[in-house]
Amino acid sequence: MPPESLNILVIHGPNLNMLGTREPDIYGRTTLDEIDSGLAVQAKEMTCVLESFQSNHEGELIDRIQQAMGSMDGILINPGGLTHSSVSLRDALASTGLPVLEVHLSNVFAREPFRHQSFISGIALGVISGLGARGYGVGLEALVEHIRH
Amino acid sequence: MPPESLNILVIHGPNLNMLGTREPDIYGRTTLDEIDSGLAVQAKEMTCVLESFQSNHEGELIDRIQQAMGSMDGILINPGGLTHSSVSLRDALASTGLPVLEVHLSNVFAREPFRHQSFISGIALGVISGLGARGYGVGLEALVEHIRH
Amino acid sequence: MPPESLNILVIHGPNLNMLGTREPDIYGRTTLDEIDSGLAVQAKEMTCVLESFQSNHEGELIDRIQQAMGSMDGILINPGGLTHSSVSLRDALASTGLPVLEVHLSNVFAREPFRHQSFISGIALGVISGLGARGYGVGLEALVEHIRH
Amino acid sequence: MPPESLNILVIHGPNLNMLGTREPDIYGRTTLDEIDSGLAVQAKEMTCVLESFQSNHEGELIDRIQQAMGSMDGILINPGGLTHSSVSLRDALASTGLPVLEVHLSNVFAREPFRHQSFISGIALGVISGLGARGYGVGLEALVEHIRH
Amino acid sequence: MPPESLNILVIHGPNLNMLGTREPDIYGRTTLDEIDSGLAVQAKEMTCVLESFQSNHEGELIDRIQQAMGSMDGILINPGGLTHSSVSLRDALASTGLPVLEVHLSNVFAREPFRHQSFISGIALGVISGLGARGYGVGLEALVEHIRH
Amino acid sequence: MPPESLNILVIHGPNLNMLGTREPDIYGRTTLDEIDSGLAVQAKEMTCVLESFQSNHEGELIDRIQQAMGSMDGILINPGGLTHSSVSLRDALASTGLPVLEVHLSNVFAREPFRHQSFISGIALGVISGLGARGYGVGLEALVEHIRH
Amino acid sequence: MPPESLNILVIHGPNLNMLGTREPDIYGRTTLDEIDSGLAVQAKEMTCVLESFQSNHEGELIDRIQQAMGSMDGILINPGGLTHSSVSLRDALASTGLPVLEVHLSNVFAREPFRHQSFISGIALGVISGLGARGYGVGLEALVEHIRH
Amino acid sequence: MPPESLNILVIHGPNLNMLGTREPDIYGRTTLDEIDSGLAVQAKEMTCVLESFQSNHEGELIDRIQQAMGSMDGILINPGGLTHSSVSLRDALASTGLPVLEVHLSNVFAREPFRHQSFISGIALGVISGLGARGYGVGLEALVEHIRH
Amino acid sequence: MPPESLNILVIHGPNLNMLGTREPDIYGRTTLDEIDSGLAVQAKEMTCVLESFQSNHEGELIDRIQQAMGSMDGILINPGGLTHSSVSLRDALASTGLPVLEVHLSNVFAREPFRHQSFISGIALGVISGLGARGYGVGLEALVEHIRH
Amino acid sequence: MPPESLNILVIHGPNLNMLGTREPDIYGRTTLDEIDSGLAVQAKEMTCVLESFQSNHEGELIDRIQQAMGSMDGILINPGGLTHSSVSLRDALASTGLPVLEVHLSNVFAREPFRHQSFISGIALGVISGLGARGYGVGLEALVEHIRH
Amino acid sequence: MPPESLNILVIHGPNLNMLGTREPDIYGRTTLDEIDSGLAVQAKEMTCVLESFQSNHEGELIDRIQQAMGSMDGILINPGGLTHSSVSLRDALASTGLPVLEVHLSNVFAREPFRHQSFISGIALGVISGLGARGYGVGLEALVEHIRH
Amino acid sequence: MPPESLNILVIHGPNLNMLGTREPDIYGRTTLDEIDSGLAVQAKEMTCVLESFQSNHEGELIDRIQQAMGSMDGILINPGGLTHSSVSLRDALASTGLPVLEVHLSNVFAREPFRHQSFISGIALGVISGLGARGYGVGLEALVEHIRH
Repeated sequence: MPPESLNILVIHGPNLNMLGTREPDIYGRTTLDEIDSGLAVQAKEMTCVLESFQSNHEGELIDRIQQAMGSMDGILINPGGLTHSSVSLRDALASTGLPVLEVHLSNVFAREPFRHQSFISGIALGVISGLGARGYGVGLEALVEHIRH
Repeated sequence: MPPESLNILVIHGPNLNMLGTREPDIYGRTTLDEIDSGLAVQAKEMTCVLESFQSNHEGELIDRIQQAMGSMDGILINPGGLTHSSVSLRDALASTGLPVLEVHLSNVFAREPFRHQSFISGIALGVISGLGARGYGVGLEALVEHIRH
Repeated sequence: MPPESLNILVIHGPNLNMLGTREPDIYGRTTLDEIDSGLAVQAKEMTCVLESFQSNHEGELIDRIQQAMGSMDGILINPGGLTHSSVSLRDALASTGLPVLEVHLSNVFAREPFRHQSFISGIALGVISGLGARGYGVGLEALVEHIRH
Repeated sequence: MPPESLNILVIHGPNLNMLGTREPDIYGRTTLDEIDSGLAVQAKEMTCVLESFQSNHEGELIDRIQQAMGSMDGILINPGGLTHSSVSLRDALASTGLPVLEVHLSNVFAREPFRHQSFISGIALGVISGLGARGYGVGLEALVEHIRH
Repeated sequence: MPPESLNILVIHGPNLNMLGTREPDIYGRTTLDEIDSGLAVQAKEMTCVLESFQSNHEGELIDRIQQAMGSMDGILINPGGLTHSSVSLRDALASTGLPVLEVHLSNVFAREPFRHQSFISGIALGVISGLGARGYGVGLEALVEHIRH
Repeated sequence: MPPESLNILVIHGPNLNMLGTREPDIYGRTTLDEIDSGLAVQAKEMTCVLESFQSNHEGELIDRIQQAMGSMDGILINPGGLTHSSVSLRDALASTGLPVLEVHLSNVFAREPFRHQSFISGIALGVISGLGARGYGVGLEALVEHIRH
Repeated sequence: MPPESLNILVIHGPNLNMLGTREPDIYGRTTLDEIDSGLAVQAKEMTCVLESFQSNHEGELIDRIQQAMGSMDGILINPGGLTHSSVSLRDALASTGLPVLEVHLSNVFAREPFRHQSFISGIALGVISGLGARGYGVGLEALVEHIRH
Repeated sequence: MPPESLNILVIHGPNLNMLGTREPDIYGRTTLDEIDSGLAVQAKEMTCVLESFQSNHEGELIDRIQQAMGSMDGILINPGGLTHSSVSLRDALASTGLPVLEVHLSNVFAREPFRHQSFISGIALGVISGLGARGYGVGLEALVEHIRH
Repeated sequence: MPPESLNILVIHGPNLNMLGTREPDIYGRTTLDEIDSGLAVQAKEMTCVLESFQSNHEGELIDRIQQAMGSMDGILINPGGLTHSSVSLRDALASTGLPVLEVHLSNVFAREPFRHQSFISGIALGVISGLGARGYGVGLEALVEHIRH
Repeated sequence: MPPESLNILVIHGPNLNMLGTREPDIYGRTTLDEIDSGLAVQAKEMTCVLESFQSNHEGELIDRIQQAMGSMDGILINPGGLTHSSVSLRDALASTGLPVLEVHLSNVFAREPFRHQSFISGIALGVISGLGARGYGVGLEALVEHIRH
Repeated sequence: MPPESLNILVIHGPNLNMLGTREPDIYGRTTLDEIDSGLAVQAKEMTCVLESFQSNHEGELIDRIQQAMGSMDGILINPGGLTHSSVSLRDALASTGLPVLEVHLSNVFAREPFRHQSFISGIALGVISGLGARGYGVGLEALVEHIRH
Repeated sequence: MPPESLNILVIHGPNLNMLGTREPDIYGRTTLDEIDSGLAVQAKEMTCVLESFQSNHEGELIDRIQQAMGSMDGILINPGGLTHSSVSLRDALASTGLPVLEVHLSNVFAREPFRHQSFISGIALGVISGLGARGYGVGLEALVEHIRH
């Protein structure tokens, strides 16, 4: 019997729409659409439905996260630069009561000191940092497995 | 002779639209609409007119606060998570030249250390923390009294 | 049916006996007796009995707070300068197991940095700062409401 | 032979739309429109075309900055209060690969300590602080000269 | 030949009179009288005479400690909340020139960060923390042994 | 054509031999042998050969890591408590010149503050935290993919 | 014409009653009575009347300082260990509106780090540290001269 | 009826094998063998069996502590220099689930600042510091009493 | 009518005499003489007279600055390395009561952390950083405009 | 019999030559010559010979202080801004082995935070701060008395 | 008469066995054997006998250092990564009572901030950093000279 | 063939002219002339020519260092107290592009905390601390060897 289908919200924070063009030395050459397409395929195999949402606006991200309550089963998030400054994003994620998995493309711990602190990690299930675009897929698997077990 | 009517702007910051559903252990079960309704009744008795505004967007909050200049007599604000991170919100409030009263539902001083610092308090008339939904009513009274005396 | 009468201890810390004479720019011109009289009237309306106690001695404050256990239903306290230095006062308040509401006349967060830290807030129900003498009345209402609900 | 025309994006952060009305003691009496008009005249003389953009929304600023990539030759920015809190704005600026010049109307180094730190300076070509509205003109010249040489 | 009798001053700081009633989860259910009685029995066996003194007043504690000079052979002290805030208590203890042993009922190092610092430890012979009421007996033995050897 | 076989060293730091018995609330119920067996299967499918090594001795870990130079293609490491204290382990890993992937079973960023700092992250390819035993598998995939691409 | 007589309050903080017996290497061999007698003689020559007050109780010191308002012309204070811990003493001194001169027998800046910070200096006219008992006489002269000129 | 026999593991950290020869001014002249012999006698009287283990190797200490799980009833530990640097030792102790009592021969709080912090205290039942070799005996009694009651 | 002529003192701090030879990657290839010549031409057009002074000696810089009082109308200063270490230079500038404009060739905020703090900025009219030699001209214009308006 | 004559070196640090003209609100209206003349008269009465030396050059101050060795009996110094930045001045003073008394005209402890730290105090006999020009006379008396007793 | 022969223990900490292969840009291409051979020749000329010992195990290093007591005349140590983390190594060195000279191949002060702090320097005779392999020879000479004079 | 002759500048910072007289317990009894003579002999054997320069003036030291560019091959410097305070000296040394070796007579790391930080070390080849006068000779050898190899 196949597992019950899960709805997963994928949140991409500020500047992630620039992936593939923005500083490829740090962030790689894969575009956000390619990441989302790849994730969708992977999700289907895992009997999941994804909704991806990117915004450069903290407020839109919070709006979208709030709507996840009741309709989604988990949140996969790369908060971008908001990782290090947004208490409101943390509060929005916590308010949903959903399991949250935090992903960073680059290894934030090997970059500027201000990127070593995350307001999100304290309420996340786990953190994946430095695996590039692959980190999303890895995170999706881990999040789904956590929800199902 | 009744006092001159006052216009008070009530600002609710990010995630406060979730009141009543979001982490009721911390924030209580009253919804934001209920708070606003109660405040409106109280305001009427005090010969005041309220305008309430909630947004998860720092920018919309700043837009609304800027418009208060000239039309409003005071601002009652619960800045939510922006309390601890937004210099721009502080600047917007200060730019109006209006008296500002800061309200927090939970006692922020008994929570995580990053919630002990407020960018707003330094330019506020006063701060009320931990009285739950009642803090708004209390704050409204204090703000109106300050303006009238 | 009127609510059951409540006994509330009102504690005024060091230098608050100087109210009305001491630095009126910061603390206002109302005397402590006037505050206590006003609070007593308000308490009566709320079917409460107040006991007010002021001392410049940390030890006397602790003695009085300890006696509240068993005979009082809540504590309204303006710890004055002890706010920022007295672990013993915190321990005394916590030892009673009673709900505690912390009041400051001035907005301590807009003053010297050493006034931004409170040893009391961590064990208080809530904090009211900057509402002047009115903060006591507001605090009393909130405390009583908390106890009754 | 006249120099090749340059396209410069001028970004004004939160609350700068209030210039001329907001705290004139600190920010002066010139309005943002007057600044932009003056800059446009100066730009023309330097064979440049300016696009000015103000928003109170971090997200809109980031959206606009991202569009600069490919169409603009440099960015002149007064990040307002976001200077001290927005990693995302820094990332957006860095992602364009364009030269960035940071301008502050007031001398931020002579104000509150939290204004002494800038997330933008680390990726800026230079910083101009405290020259009032004139700082924009100065910055424009320096930025254009940097691009042309 | 029995050892010469020793006079030991036992000092209990603020709130220790509440032992047995105050937060028994942290401090246990033994009362201060029971601790003092037990210590007196133990002292007699060790040919010592104890004088126990508790006060919630820093000043009274200092007064009593000063009198120990010349009449006492050592001081066993649980400074309570003054541990973390009182330079004057430290100075009083140091001024007697007597050996001092510091006792805490709870393990202060496993509690709030502000309890990890002691102004007393720097001039104490030793520190015993977390052994509950038994810590006094242990401390008395160690202090007496230190004085006699 | 199958990819060339890779040799991966899996390093488990102090106390990880206790997995399954040690604080299962934090670390789960899977034993280290089960983790290693699962990884071996996964490795085989990826045409990799694993060597797993656990020790409670910093020195033995360093000895083993040094031997990886020349014979191994990458290192997957859960440094346990040494994460936060061992410069020597960092130096050993860096000295091999091999890609290193850091794994933590629990989300170290949601635990005590001293667990938020890692000496290893600064020289790691990436960090995976909080995915439980699954984090090893995820890390292995990411490490192998990094080496092959 | 002789100058108008001045009333000066001399405050000695905790442990200063021990002068002459307490740690003479640090504090010298002159007793507090000898200091007060010497000061009285000096005061007479300066047409001043002194009132000296020593207490080990913060509260008594505050009580006495508050009474100075209206009857005294200035305060000469050696706050002892309270220098470094008492916000309440600072507030009491400030509340009198009288000029305050702070004296320390030893050079506090050459002792333990916690003695390098003073809550009193911020509201004092000046500070004299390390001149031993003579510091009081020097301070008296300076204080009187300040008041008369 | 005599109490059930208890098994207590006594752990001596790095350099404690040097006791009696190493810096006797700080650590005294008693050797570790003498301490262990004395403890064994004391243990017998308390119907306990001790196993003492000293090592200069963090790893060996962790190995031995892990084996205590299931066979021992409590751990008495002087972690030596590892007190201030070893997260792994803390984790090993915590992983056993056994009550732990921390002993230091010297008063670490009166020595260099880096000795004022302990990674062990946060998970210990209690801490005894500065009682010299006697601290072990005291600690044993307290540990056994804790286990039996 | 031409504006009244102004006298501007241009101060170059330590090592600026090395411009053009010293680390051209950071400081550019223009020599100090060239900068001074360019400034002189610019000054003439603005009806100003410049006096330029460079020294590697803090004392000589202070001597020269002091002489500006009465004879000069403003000071343009690049304090070099003294920016980050000299309170005396700050005091000298402040003592003249003249408007001061601070210039740095490189963007000090993008260099070592110790270059992010300036003792001069707190008393300067404004700060220009990172515009290279051009920063002097820009600063001169801004300074003159400030004086004339 | 008159006391043996003493030679006292009076050192005035940077900017003190500006006394009387420089920021009279902070430093008063007495000139340095007037201070030196007054001190000379006072010295004569005390059978002392003064040598006064002012320089804005740290190096000249050090040169002069070094020469004091052998010919002088004590040093009275107002280090000006070097107080807070010059380790070399501290070393020069310490190298003479002479008693040093530190004087500040203003109360440095009530000014900017960077003026609260002194490199000189740690090797000074005492510190006098905030007594204005009078502080020198007071300091001279205290220094001479210290040398003679 | 030749000087009496001296026995010098040379301790090489973790990862130094990798010299010549490990990150030659930082540590050079000389192997540890070559260093030891060179030192042995140099020692012979100085009538010294060396014993060299390398380990990656803190515990083995401590064991070996403890044995030096009585048989060795001094210790030359490059503590490697333990420099920055091992209190136990410091204690072992101090416990021998022997003169200790600390050597680092690279200039640790020009590397990561965590390498700027040494637990060893506080008890060392001296520190040599950044001279590469030659630092050992230099250190040996200095150590021997210190012992003989 | 003898090596090409090298020119080495030896810089002695403030107070080093006092060597042999100044605090011999810390700095030894060798005079600076003796050190320079010894170094000259040693230099000759190494086919080097030394120029030694001492000054108590930061400015003179910078002047002399700047002149080294072009004529000298390396700089051996004991910056004295300027080590811990002079960014300008660091900049001067860096501006020459020459290899710099930093020497301290005493072990600065075992003295006051403010001596543990060096502005020079970050741009030095290496640091030698605590070898007394011998440190110069050692440093000269290392510097010359570095230049020649």
